Amino acid sequence: MLSFTITGNYTDLYQLTMGQAYFLEGRKEHRACFDYFFRKIPFVGGYVLFAGLEDLLNVLESLHFSDEDITFLKEMKFHPSFLDYLKGFQFCGTVYSCMEGDVVFPNCPILRVEGNIIEAQLVETILLNILNFESLVATKASRMRYVAEDRALSDFGFRRAHGPGAVLAAKAAIIGGFQSTSNVYAAQLYGIEAAGTMAHSFIESYESEFEAFRAFAKVHPCRCIFLVDTYDTLRSGVPNAITVAKELEKEGHKAIGIRLDSGDLAYLSKTVRNMLDEAGLYYMKIVASNQLDEYVIKSLLEQEAPIDIFGIGTKLVTGQPDSALDGVYKLSIVSGKPRIKISESLKKVTLPGIKQVLRVMDNDDMFFGADAVVLSEEGEKTNMIFHPFEEDKSLDISRYRQEPLLHKVMENGKGISRKTDLNNIAHFAQKRLALLPAEYRRFENPHIYKVGISKKLMEIREILRDQYKRK
Amino acid sequence: MLSFTITGNYTDLYQLTMGQAYFLEGRKEHRACFDYFFRKIPFVGGYVLFAGLEDLLNVLESLHFSDEDITFLKEMKFHPSFLDYLKGFQFCGTVYSCMEGDVVFPNCPILRVEGNIIEAQLVETILLNILNFESLVATKASRMRYVAEDRALSDFGFRRAHGPGAVLAAKAAIIGGFQSTSNVYAAQLYGIEAAGTMAHSFIESYESEFEAFRAFAKVHPCRCIFLVDTYDTLRSGVPNAITVAKELEKEGHKAIGIRLDSGDLAYLSKTVRNMLDEAGLYYMKIVASNQLDEYVIKSLLEQEAPIDIFGIGTKLVTGQPDSALDGVYKLSIVSGKPRIKISESLKKVTLPGIKQVLRVMDNDDMFFGADAVVLSEEGEKTNMIFHPFEEDKSLDISRYRQEPLLHKVMENGKGISRKTDLNNIAHFAQKRLALLPAEYRRFENPHIYKVGISKKLMEIREILRDQYKRK
Repeated sequence: MLSFTITGNYTDLYQLTMGQAYFLEGRKEHRACFDYFFRKIPFVGGYVLFAGLEDLLNVLESLHFSDEDITFLKEMKFHPSFLDYLKGFQFCGTVYSCMEGDVVFPNCPILRVEGNIIEAQLVETILLNILNFESLVATKASRMRYVAEDRALSDFGFRRAHGPGAVLAAKAAIIGGFQSTSNVYAAQLYGIEAAGTMAHSFIESYESEFEAFRAFAKVHPCRCIFLVDTYDTLRSGVPNAITVAKELEKEGHKAIGIRLDSGDLAYLSKTVRNMLDEAGLYYMKIVASNQLDEYVIKSLLEQEAPIDIFGIGTKLVTGQPDSALDGVYKLSIVSGKPRIKISESLKKVTLPGIKQVLRVMDNDDMFFGADAVVLSEEGEKTNMIFHPFEEDKSLDISRYRQEPLLHKVMENGKGISRKTDLNNIAHFAQKRLALLPAEYRRFENPHIYKVGISKKLMEIREILRDQYKRK
Repeated sequence: MLSFTITGNYTDLYQLTMGQAYFLEGRKEHRACFDYFFRKIPFVGGYVLFAGLEDLLNVLESLHFSDEDITFLKEMKFHPSFLDYLKGFQFCGTVYSCMEGDVVFPNCPILRVEGNIIEAQLVETILLNILNFESLVATKASRMRYVAEDRALSDFGFRRAHGPGAVLAAKAAIIGGFQSTSNVYAAQLYGIEAAGTMAHSFIESYESEFEAFRAFAKVHPCRCIFLVDTYDTLRSGVPNAITVAKELEKEGHKAIGIRLDSGDLAYLSKTVRNMLDEAGLYYMKIVASNQLDEYVIKSLLEQEAPIDIFGIGTKLVTGQPDSALDGVYKLSIVSGKPRIKISESLKKVTLPGIKQVLRVMDNDDMFFGADAVVLSEEGEKTNMIFHPFEEDKSLDISRYRQEPLLHKVMENGKGISRKTDLNNIAHFAQKRLALLPAEYRRFENPHIYKVGISKKLMEIREILRDQYKRK
């Protein structure tokens, strides 16, 4: 049996070697803060849709080292006293985060972990593993949602996904605006609608397509989506589907629709729509699949293809062409002292201290186009923000309403009551995406959403940079 | 707790709706064969390295529907008698396969499942989910292995991988020729060497880099790989690493090396090598990481960068830029009758019947550059092979030795004794890759490995195509 259970050893080895050093050096009670953020928006897009928080909090609430974990670490010659510590390990940190389903931008802290330095460091790998991937797929899905308008979207990617990553992808797709998945495991785990009827092999296993359709309809009179391209879509598949759909009508059932999985989907969908309508089967839907992504969907709808449901596989669940969000997890405070990561490139220098992110709202209560990163101690409203790398560029945001984005979602290892229902998260995501002006959502050269920092944050960063330079 | 256990519901819904149709239609004892093959080589490469077989066979041996699975399917209104069948479900099929770690080519059957039509159909999703992804990563890894020559390769991709896909990726990388992984979970599950020492945050958490190095060395005197680019690689990191390495020497220990994670890795590695050598630390290794792939490794070694170990993340574990192998699973026989999938494009018409693949060996016992797909009944040696889509192109291979590639690896649901040890598989993979002439391994316009079919197979395919056309 193959099984993946997320326990303490679901981490990179260096988290444990560092943990042991902290432990044996007597630093295990030192407090630390880490920020999660990303640097580059995937898909040449204008935003990222943040996903994975619920899964992460569930993991953190029950994180422990199993007996097998400890045995393995013992074989790896970890120190007995550190192993004793890990045996009793529980994550007792505090987490502040943007809400799952919010729209987020580069170099803004999305989530902060506060805890002792061992626990805060240890969770880096699992945190990045979950948040980077789910946010990638939710973002990709939201782009498809944007162009698909009111058409339904279904995840068909299980077979091309990266092993059990398929399950997280199916869930993240829902956050991005999908309606269903072919993935039964994900449907069961997350309460998603499962979708799927027949493959070509089913039809090939019968002596004729007609017999196959009829057999399926007999067993599943309420679930019929006939796959019509096994032999010849227009001369065989659709006529057979129509005949069987008419037979179903006589028995008081309605076929759901037909599915196209090859050929020119624009041409075929129009022709098939006419054929169905002429047969009086106005209610039958057209499902299309076959190497779809947001660009193909857009093109099909520009051609007025009457497709009702898009089934999307590889390019959704692997996030092609980018396949990873570059999210990182960086130390911002240790033992009360702010910290930065130095780099020759100012763009890669991190932001020190405990921070809040303020989303600026315009007069229509839409997103204004700028987030402000401030020190938490500055409160939840700020006046001037500065370009993080070009000090002479500033913006007065004092007359705009500002919303704090980081909320406490876990305190001392216990999750704080939140919208855990996936539908709520998906609903919230659509609400937030609707507040993002179209110029940030378009595919061609989207507007760059500004992220500014407060004067005080900039000053602390400069003081720390000077200190490091002097050393 | 987040956990992914592969049970019966780890599948696409349509496998179950088709299964129920077969069951209620009284077809559950009908026998079927399906072939696994792919159409397109990823990475514009010349071959695919086949991986994932052991994981798949482990899954098939224990595949069952859990109580939760059945409850969920009941809620989905599956038929009580079909649910009873699933309650007692065991995979009792027979599997023929290429050996894991073999080099394989497009449109050649890599694996065949024979069983009753329900079980053979049901396992499609899990089979594709495992084999497509592991083969993708093993292939990518083998390209890095090819250019890295005798340098060590380590998987650092956990944080950017697709959730638990990270674990399968770490394992597939070993098959492709990697030596170690940062992924403790994968190391534990598959017996891989785990690697990893310190992150930037460790160094930043101390008042100085020197203190951090010294603290780490005190706790891990035999595990020191100093990360030297936190502040200034040449003016701070390397001098501090040298000082601490010298202190270790006095205590009878040897530091393993230093790690470069940013900047010009060619220039830095040369300068650092000189600095270490001048300090008499000839034994200290140089590890390099930061957005590496096969092309960057190749370029670094062409510049004679003295790097001993490459740490590779995102581009390995996500298989960038391709992110999926397009493997499919197609019906080839049902109830003793050969079947094909028809398509307007001859290239997408599948090969019917029970087949064997013969690898042709040249006079030096290297791979000749052609595989022959024949009907199993034709035996394990053939004379003429034909281009699968251009009948007038043929090749006489009668004078060459031929090796059958498909072997029985599971009989009636029980795995047949095989090399299950990951090191054996990895060793086999390197042996097979060594038999593949360089022109198929190079990155620029690799030679196309020919796949021919026997006359008899071509004839059966044509007869079936004609039959379908007449219908």
